[in-house]
Amino acid sequence: MLKDIDLSRKLAKPAYKASKEQLELRLTSLERRARELGIPVLIVFEGWNAAGKGTLINKLILPMDPRGFTVHAMREPTEEEQLRPFLWRYWTRLPPRGRLAIFDRSWYRRVLDDRIEGRADRLAVEQAFDDIASFERLLATDGTLILKFFLHISKNEQAQRFEELRDNPATAWRVTDRDLAQHERYETTVQAVDQMLARSDADFAPWVVVEAHDTRFAAIKILTTVSNALARHIAAKEQQAERDRLELPVTPLPGNITTSMLDKVDLSLTLDRDTYHKRLNAAQRRIHELHHEIYTRRIPVVLVYEGWDAAGKGGNIRRLTQSLDPRGYEVIPIAAPNDLEKAHHYLWRFWTSFPKAGHIAIFDRSWYGRVMVERIEGFCSQAEWRRAYREINEMERNLGNFGTVLLKFWIHIDQATQLQRFEDRQANPHKAWKITDEDWRNRDKWDDYRVAVDELLLRTSTPQAPWHVIESNCKLHARVKAIETVVAAIERRLEIQGL
Amino acid sequence: MLKDIDLSRKLAKPAYKASKEQLELRLTSLERRARELGIPVLIVFEGWNAAGKGTLINKLILPMDPRGFTVHAMREPTEEEQLRPFLWRYWTRLPPRGRLAIFDRSWYRRVLDDRIEGRADRLAVEQAFDDIASFERLLATDGTLILKFFLHISKNEQAQRFEELRDNPATAWRVTDRDLAQHERYETTVQAVDQMLARSDADFAPWVVVEAHDTRFAAIKILTTVSNALARHIAAKEQQAERDRLELPVTPLPGNITTSMLDKVDLSLTLDRDTYHKRLNAAQRRIHELHHEIYTRRIPVVLVYEGWDAAGKGGNIRRLTQSLDPRGYEVIPIAAPNDLEKAHHYLWRFWTSFPKAGHIAIFDRSWYGRVMVERIEGFCSQAEWRRAYREINEMERNLGNFGTVLLKFWIHIDQATQLQRFEDRQANPHKAWKITDEDWRNRDKWDDYRVAVDELLLRTSTPQAPWHVIESNCKLHARVKAIETVVAAIERRLEIQGL
Repeated sequence: MLKDIDLSRKLAKPAYKASKEQLELRLTSLERRARELGIPVLIVFEGWNAAGKGTLINKLILPMDPRGFTVHAMREPTEEEQLRPFLWRYWTRLPPRGRLAIFDRSWYRRVLDDRIEGRADRLAVEQAFDDIASFERLLATDGTLILKFFLHISKNEQAQRFEELRDNPATAWRVTDRDLAQHERYETTVQAVDQMLARSDADFAPWVVVEAHDTRFAAIKILTTVSNALARHIAAKEQQAERDRLELPVTPLPGNITTSMLDKVDLSLTLDRDTYHKRLNAAQRRIHELHHEIYTRRIPVVLVYEGWDAAGKGGNIRRLTQSLDPRGYEVIPIAAPNDLEKAHHYLWRFWTSFPKAGHIAIFDRSWYGRVMVERIEGFCSQAEWRRAYREINEMERNLGNFGTVLLKFWIHIDQATQLQRFEDRQANPHKAWKITDEDWRNRDKWDDYRVAVDELLLRTSTPQAPWHVIESNCKLHARVKAIETVVAAIERRLEIQGL
Repeated sequence: MLKDIDLSRKLAKPAYKASKEQLELRLTSLERRARELGIPVLIVFEGWNAAGKGTLINKLILPMDPRGFTVHAMREPTEEEQLRPFLWRYWTRLPPRGRLAIFDRSWYRRVLDDRIEGRADRLAVEQAFDDIASFERLLATDGTLILKFFLHISKNEQAQRFEELRDNPATAWRVTDRDLAQHERYETTVQAVDQMLARSDADFAPWVVVEAHDTRFAAIKILTTVSNALARHIAAKEQQAERDRLELPVTPLPGNITTSMLDKVDLSLTLDRDTYHKRLNAAQRRIHELHHEIYTRRIPVVLVYEGWDAAGKGGNIRRLTQSLDPRGYEVIPIAAPNDLEKAHHYLWRFWTSFPKAGHIAIFDRSWYGRVMVERIEGFCSQAEWRRAYREINEMERNLGNFGTVLLKFWIHIDQATQLQRFEDRQANPHKAWKITDEDWRNRDKWDDYRVAVDELLLRTSTPQAPWHVIESNCKLHARVKAIETVVAAIERRLEIQGL
């Protein structure tokens, strides 16, 4: 495909100047309007070395308000970044609503450089395309405008530009040995780029190939494309209110025929104190050893704790962490999102918290808030929570592709036990602060939550990221079961990796 | 996940009778309304052997108008079907608009039986999930209602049902050795089902697990789910008119900055008659040999011919087929869709024509009509043709996963040559019929077509399914180039397969 593109396109100076002035004016006002409407914008620049990415990005941002955008020059991932799924460094840099982010190189490194230089085999490349498709689709569905430019020059043109740079002592350093090695692989790279363009082109995240021999032509093409896309997106957003009005009513299944996983839970399970201490100690000793193993082997671990209020999540987590090296784990309590978090995709704040390979991240509540509290309280639309199951599964698959051990616990009690614990807490001056009006309000919505929990257990329990329901009417039983489940899962992974 | 489902759900007879009557009435009227609105409905039944698929499907169709639905019992693929991509046998059975199709077993065979019995390795399973996701998404986007039921019983229950069937001489034949072997693999299968449910659950094509120990409960759950989904879909469709009104205006790039692949084409290329005959003969002899090879090796070949009116597609195709064995190829001329075709997804009529492995299908015009004539004449909406590029790429990737050699030719001439040929044809009484008013009207839209062709070449040329632009001002050159390109592509494939 690339080989057939006409690279002789040119623009004369006067035509360029006239177009540029007009486009810059248009862009300035569109950018302002996008900011008012809270539209996040993502612009990706990929292309050959020496194709002029720097220059062209400059021309694009010149007319814009410098407070409204960020340019991310994505060099080689740092050691820190390599310890996370490849999308992590991009997730953490996503623009909040109303801002624009420009990526000079992007997540497509994974299917270009990594592939060509042998760091990703065929299955890894398939998984990467899958991860990228989920990533772009969920951002676009959430309202992000995504544009992807590929700056194209011929092999001859590249050779000539390298030569010019090297002839000048002031710029010679810019051409590295690696650049020259890549130049040698031009034809192989064309194949990979062709596949990338076809595989990841979408109406919601289109590729635009820019003929970059003539900088004037390239600049006008980029400015025009960005303006048109912004105008289109703004028009769509302005219609949003009208569309929202058309949202469909919720028609849930009658409660009595939904699939229930909670009904089967045996809440009568208990543990006596002696057995409890013996098994807890053994499991804590074992988790201490395993923590060292996973650190050495660079296995990332993510644990999710969800459950009813007063089910005993906190005490459960404490028993787990007691024997862990504090440098190797983090407990991440999730409350209502703050303003910055609200200005991003709902999964953003979790992505930014994912652990480095070799570390354990423990989420006290998690992304499942989307399909529980946000669903029940109407903090998101029906369409949003309905598509969230798939988005969450895709995110967890993405973690799985990276090798993460991911376990999810639903800490379960019955209504009577909850009431008992609420009352005990209120009667105890040291614990009364733990009970708020909101807890009582949530308790009134027990049935709604129950339907939501049953549905999420059903839709998001996967072999790679299973849910474990922990019977917690007896807290001793619950603590031992959770920690032993973690031990078993890590042991299984280490076995697979050949311990 | 499956293991946590509460299988003890039951419904007493009186409650069952009351619900059933009410649901059947509701279903009857919903089904009629869906037919009026032209909604295609796809219902999939997967589940354990002896879970009662037959009985439950019967209960679902009982209240429906028998002229409105078809039940497809999908046994093992026939030899004929195995020679096509695995989705082919389902594509060909898709319901037209306003009809309902029930699949007893479905495309999920590929990620269950084929996987468990070792006919699909890890990469093949990944590709299958990818193919399935594209398939369901494109149908749903096009307005199809998709529901997928998994009928769940425990291993014990299955053993007991098998025993009962075998104890009765009238039903003993229904339990095969294969069923028993599958029973032994129950636990392995649970793993595969869990992954399938999580991986392919979507708001636009949800999985519903049905607790199938109690037939009454299962029947009511299925009837309720289908009714609710129909009601929801009907409401959405009734809002469609309002939504359509909100469609965004087309804002094309100014013509002078679109990426052009046609500009580079050197239309001055010619061939003298001697060289023509020599090369054509050689290539025809070679293609004759290769045709035999691909037949033996069961390689499917798809060739697409698109191009300007009077560019010479017909003559070009004739030179290719002259030396082919007529039992091994088919030329498929594509005109405006007929009523049945219009009642399906736009890709349906092409899917039904794909060749068996070992055969050659030659499309004289193709699915690219969607992004040419349908785009330009407004036969589909902007949103529809904009998403078609990705849908087409996904379909072609699907063919590629199956091993198809797919080549696409754009037969190219300039406007002056076209005019010359039109006039020649009109002057020649034997050829005048070839020129219609429509040809002249299309000619007036040359510039629109040009933009559309440039865009489709750019967005759909992939390493696995490349476009070849054939310079055809000189027909002799064009014929030789096309046939030699086919020869080269097939030779390359045979080499890869180690000829």
